[in-house]
Amino acid sequence: MRHSRTSTGTEHSQRLRRLRRAMREDGVDALLITHLPDIRYLCGFSGSNGALALAAKEAILFTDGRYTVQAAQETRAARVRIAAKSAQGEACAWLAASGAAHCGFDAAHTTVADLDLFRRSVVQPRGAQARGVQARGRAGGARFFRPLGAPLVHNLRMIKDAGELKLIERAAHLGVKLFTDLLPRVHPGMPESELAGMLELAARMHGADGMSFDTIVASGPRSSLPHGRATSRPLPRRGFVTLDFGVILNGYCSDMTRTFFLGKATRRERFAYDAVREAQRAAVDIVRPGVSCGEVDEAARSVLRKAGLADFFTHSTGHGVGLEIHEAPRLAAAEQQLLVSGMVITIEPGVYLPGRFGVRIEDMVAVTGDGARVLTPAPTAWTEL
Amino acid sequence: MRHSRTSTGTEHSQRLRRLRRAMREDGVDALLITHLPDIRYLCGFSGSNGALALAAKEAILFTDGRYTVQAAQETRAARVRIAAKSAQGEACAWLAASGAAHCGFDAAHTTVADLDLFRRSVVQPRGAQARGVQARGRAGGARFFRPLGAPLVHNLRMIKDAGELKLIERAAHLGVKLFTDLLPRVHPGMPESELAGMLELAARMHGADGMSFDTIVASGPRSSLPHGRATSRPLPRRGFVTLDFGVILNGYCSDMTRTFFLGKATRRERFAYDAVREAQRAAVDIVRPGVSCGEVDEAARSVLRKAGLADFFTHSTGHGVGLEIHEAPRLAAAEQQLLVSGMVITIEPGVYLPGRFGVRIEDMVAVTGDGARVLTPAPTAWTEL
Repeated sequence: MRHSRTSTGTEHSQRLRRLRRAMREDGVDALLITHLPDIRYLCGFSGSNGALALAAKEAILFTDGRYTVQAAQETRAARVRIAAKSAQGEACAWLAASGAAHCGFDAAHTTVADLDLFRRSVVQPRGAQARGVQARGRAGGARFFRPLGAPLVHNLRMIKDAGELKLIERAAHLGVKLFTDLLPRVHPGMPESELAGMLELAARMHGADGMSFDTIVASGPRSSLPHGRATSRPLPRRGFVTLDFGVILNGYCSDMTRTFFLGKATRRERFAYDAVREAQRAAVDIVRPGVSCGEVDEAARSVLRKAGLADFFTHSTGHGVGLEIHEAPRLAAAEQQLLVSGMVITIEPGVYLPGRFGVRIEDMVAVTGDGARVLTPAPTAWTEL
Repeated sequence: MRHSRTSTGTEHSQRLRRLRRAMREDGVDALLITHLPDIRYLCGFSGSNGALALAAKEAILFTDGRYTVQAAQETRAARVRIAAKSAQGEACAWLAASGAAHCGFDAAHTTVADLDLFRRSVVQPRGAQARGVQARGRAGGARFFRPLGAPLVHNLRMIKDAGELKLIERAAHLGVKLFTDLLPRVHPGMPESELAGMLELAARMHGADGMSFDTIVASGPRSSLPHGRATSRPLPRRGFVTLDFGVILNGYCSDMTRTFFLGKATRRERFAYDAVREAQRAAVDIVRPGVSCGEVDEAARSVLRKAGLADFFTHSTGHGVGLEIHEAPRLAAAEQQLLVSGMVITIEPGVYLPGRFGVRIEDMVAVTGDGARVLTPAPTAWTEL
């Protein structure tokens, strides 16, 4: 449990108000939210089990007995009920009894089994008669729950409000500080996992809740693995080291990557690094409201194309970040989503020559009213240690 | 990427053979596996994106370009294909063209949106004509995919094979070693997060891939939060400290909890501790094949009932552990699942007095041919520091 107040009840009430407006446009008068980061965003509760039931006038967070104290401390803009059996099941029964005609759910975060449970909870709510809950027929249960036409909460979360931007910036700055402090302590022969461990301990000592994903430390030929989690392999005397990591601070994720070189690089290695750096800068430089995600991707990709390295850039250019490490938007080829002020995205082109080496440089960037602000201002200049 | 070979291709082939037998009983001749721990279990691939397509004679792992090298190194008992667009979509198209009549999927790990994608991938496979893939009608797409009648892979994974037991035991023993090394370094005034950070760094230095969940360090009144993740709060001069943590070693999770006391405890605090310890032992003592999960839960619960503390034991007694931190079976009241040799479970009763204190003691236990083996043999004797 975090005791820090990451945002005020007012912020959460505003989010719920915006969500209710979007619900009306989507044609539902109730909503069941079960994806935990969405729950945290909407009402502040950060536990590992919960269901937020939203009717026209009321919002109730259902959770279990482990979270009695925590839910009371954290929850804003919604009442709390401790479920005797299933938080999801009781939320469904309550929604069915709320008088709502149609309850939306998020198809991307609801399993086929969950949906089956939702429907059964409405058809035969436990102790329905006793609590005066109207049971619906089987067909009614199937009709009551509707996949939302658009990912409403996800769309709200894509545009960060002022409080969130502050928290994300703090997380990003902590990441920069940790990297800056760590770099002078890196030396050949130390295990990749020691580098990761030192970073993670420092993150803890600076108040991080944890890391936002498995720390990537990929050295030597392993740098050609875009997702090379730290192993016990020692850092080589000569070769690239890619460090890709993020902290979670007050619930919000940071994400950054730097690649540096141990020993003396060849011209080809240096060439690849410079190309990635130029690609990364080009992409950051065109970020502003109204530019499409595909255009940002293309800005990076075209630099690597000119360098003859586009075939080795095997992933997309970036993604949104916030309460989750991967959020909307997706910065990939041909993505038509336009950038909007308040989005926070990563820009992280890379090239990977299988079995030889790889390079990636990543910053977090906030889209502002007229451009971009880099949230992770650690140098990207060529670094040989 | 892990270079250590956690199991041989033979083991994976055996798992696929067992799975195919179960598929026949379930009435499907193909299976689409998208849950990552299931994929790792069945073919060894540990990347973050993949779909394993299983037809009668062939198994293919579909993943993306980031994992070209890693998939080639890790995958056993299946061929690898790098998908141009969507690994899931291409797996579906391949399955539809495989000649299978019905393809099962796991309803508990397939979202409503995923299922929609599966069906669309079969109705209009990308470039179908060109690759000679037969497109099915809309109804055909809907009929082709069937929720499995039973969670087949999950049932296989519940009973660990010899190779897995060895790996789980290694992870559990590392957990014990870390705890034993850490205990003498604990003192009042150090932040909970420093304790967590020291533990996590030590885990890294001993080769852990990472932690199996957010480390819980709950001290003083916070010990009454069953899921109190470490905060920057300093350990008190007087009070309980609950430490609940796990490492991931070669992909397998450990899980253990110890509660110790800083300073001098009151009689009531000591009484609660002794009751939890007795409850935990009673539950471990009745573990053997043929006993139901509900009976194990009741063994712990009845001890706390006699002590007048049952109302403060607000969660279930335990859960399975393996590639995931929470697996089947669930050790909760009235659960009828019988214990079987090869299961690995936690036994972790606790009592939580809101705002005052809490105690939990947890071991990992392997069910053997005629009883149980405790995998986390760290002392549970009353400890005052």
